[in-house]
Amino acid sequence: MNDINSRGRLKRIEESLKAYIDNCCAPERLKESMGYSLLAGGKRLRPMLCLEAASMLGGSEEAAMPIACALEMIHTYSLIHDDLPCMDDDDMRRGRPSNHKVFGEGNAVLAGDGLLSLAFETMLNEGDKHIAKAPRYYEAAAEVARGAGVSGMVAGQSLDLEKTGSDGDIALLEAIQTRKTGAMIEAALCSGAIIAGAEKAELDAIRSFAKSYGKLFQITDDILDVAGTKENMGKTLGKDAEENKLTAVTLLGLDGAREYAARVLNEAKRALEIFGSKAEKLLELSESTLHRTK
Amino acid sequence: MNDINSRGRLKRIEESLKAYIDNCCAPERLKESMGYSLLAGGKRLRPMLCLEAASMLGGSEEAAMPIACALEMIHTYSLIHDDLPCMDDDDMRRGRPSNHKVFGEGNAVLAGDGLLSLAFETMLNEGDKHIAKAPRYYEAAAEVARGAGVSGMVAGQSLDLEKTGSDGDIALLEAIQTRKTGAMIEAALCSGAIIAGAEKAELDAIRSFAKSYGKLFQITDDILDVAGTKENMGKTLGKDAEENKLTAVTLLGLDGAREYAARVLNEAKRALEIFGSKAEKLLELSESTLHRTK
Repeated sequence: MNDINSRGRLKRIEESLKAYIDNCCAPERLKESMGYSLLAGGKRLRPMLCLEAASMLGGSEEAAMPIACALEMIHTYSLIHDDLPCMDDDDMRRGRPSNHKVFGEGNAVLAGDGLLSLAFETMLNEGDKHIAKAPRYYEAAAEVARGAGVSGMVAGQSLDLEKTGSDGDIALLEAIQTRKTGAMIEAALCSGAIIAGAEKAELDAIRSFAKSYGKLFQITDDILDVAGTKENMGKTLGKDAEENKLTAVTLLGLDGAREYAARVLNEAKRALEIFGSKAEKLLELSESTLHRTK
Repeated sequence: MNDINSRGRLKRIEESLKAYIDNCCAPERLKESMGYSLLAGGKRLRPMLCLEAASMLGGSEEAAMPIACALEMIHTYSLIHDDLPCMDDDDMRRGRPSNHKVFGEGNAVLAGDGLLSLAFETMLNEGDKHIAKAPRYYEAAAEVARGAGVSGMVAGQSLDLEKTGSDGDIALLEAIQTRKTGAMIEAALCSGAIIAGAEKAELDAIRSFAKSYGKLFQITDDILDVAGTKENMGKTLGKDAEENKLTAVTLLGLDGAREYAARVLNEAKRALEIFGSKAEKLLELSESTLHRTK
């Protein structure tokens, strides 16, 4: 039941997300557009990481669930805004038309604003109920706010929008990716650990693991874009290079990116050593991320 | 010094807002676009209401300031997104080009996302420092989250976007305005009162005042649009009517709207009776709102 890939946990996350949408007092159209994107499935990686970090350190899934759901709401809002014509201009997301193609651009902006607001409303409202059980609840919520905010995910989006593809190097790529993707992965793992009452050394180790795992996730994403069977992607190395897209593969080549990923995986594993066998699930996840096909 | 319109208080709000922008770790371009809109002056009505409610009930301005600044960040993000071409498509704001005219639409979306995130990051980070002084700090932050969120301000934006001008009545107008403008005014006053440790009866009275004051503010805004000397507006009653704009004036006529405003002002004043002379500043504000020229 505590398996990070367990269907039971995934099902509980889906049910909680659906309940937050069903129970929120948004007007019908807004609720529909928020639900369209939030309840479209997906790996639920960030909630899974949050719950596993909490569980590994003996915390309760129930206390961490509002934070886990808030992480997914924030991730989803970022995808809706990122897909807008004035940003990445993507027509498809998770195998179906992106939010603004269905509801229009104005509603998509508001669906994103709504999900970001609901994330914080969820964390702040639930806090009252759980604070006795989890005295560091608001510290965990603050961790999520930092990961999502202007030194984290929004910073990554901004740097990504600003860069021109041609003048990037590995330092710029890492600066973007650690913020755009890494910051929320770090927030997910660290907020879960904080909820569970992690000691300083434990939190440091989780944070170190999170930084390596975030890199691993992004590099393997870049590899999948050109070499894999990733859903809805039919790109080739040639196409990414043509578009001057800044990725680990266009910078290092496919073999170079794979070596880089293997090195980062080793860093991730070393960071988990202090947890011994308790870290089994996160170790499995890291191994499977290197070899993932979606 | 406690005068709601005092320059001293306004100056402290401006300094705090500037410090939050200066000290945040956003990339340069993002920081610039957030600061462009946040530091563009204005009445700072929501922070002023928050600080006055706290002060009236014996709370400290220092403890309420992070909440007051967060309210202004949220208000500003909503203006940036509202001005986008896919929303109200306004080229000007507070006498200068709107955010997307200067920084582009993608950056404007991110400046809004960044300010909303910074608002919650501010409230959650500052909480640690102030919680001893203000044990109901997070309850105040939750009040702001509700006012800003999908049952409050974002709901109002969504209903406003959905409606067609021609089929509105006073009930729809109130449904939109109580959410779009009223919810954040209520959040401002109630969060300030909560920070100061308001008793239930006091909080109920403040909330009742807030609902009436929010209406008064919006009706007088509608009146100013057609009859007043409001900045950057050259509209006439004919123009609002031509555009099928749903306002108190197009629905009730100018005299009808003025009568409505006077009635709502009386409701607002009655709600403050339990505070006696302590409510003097809020009473003055209400009177001056009826006769405002900007």
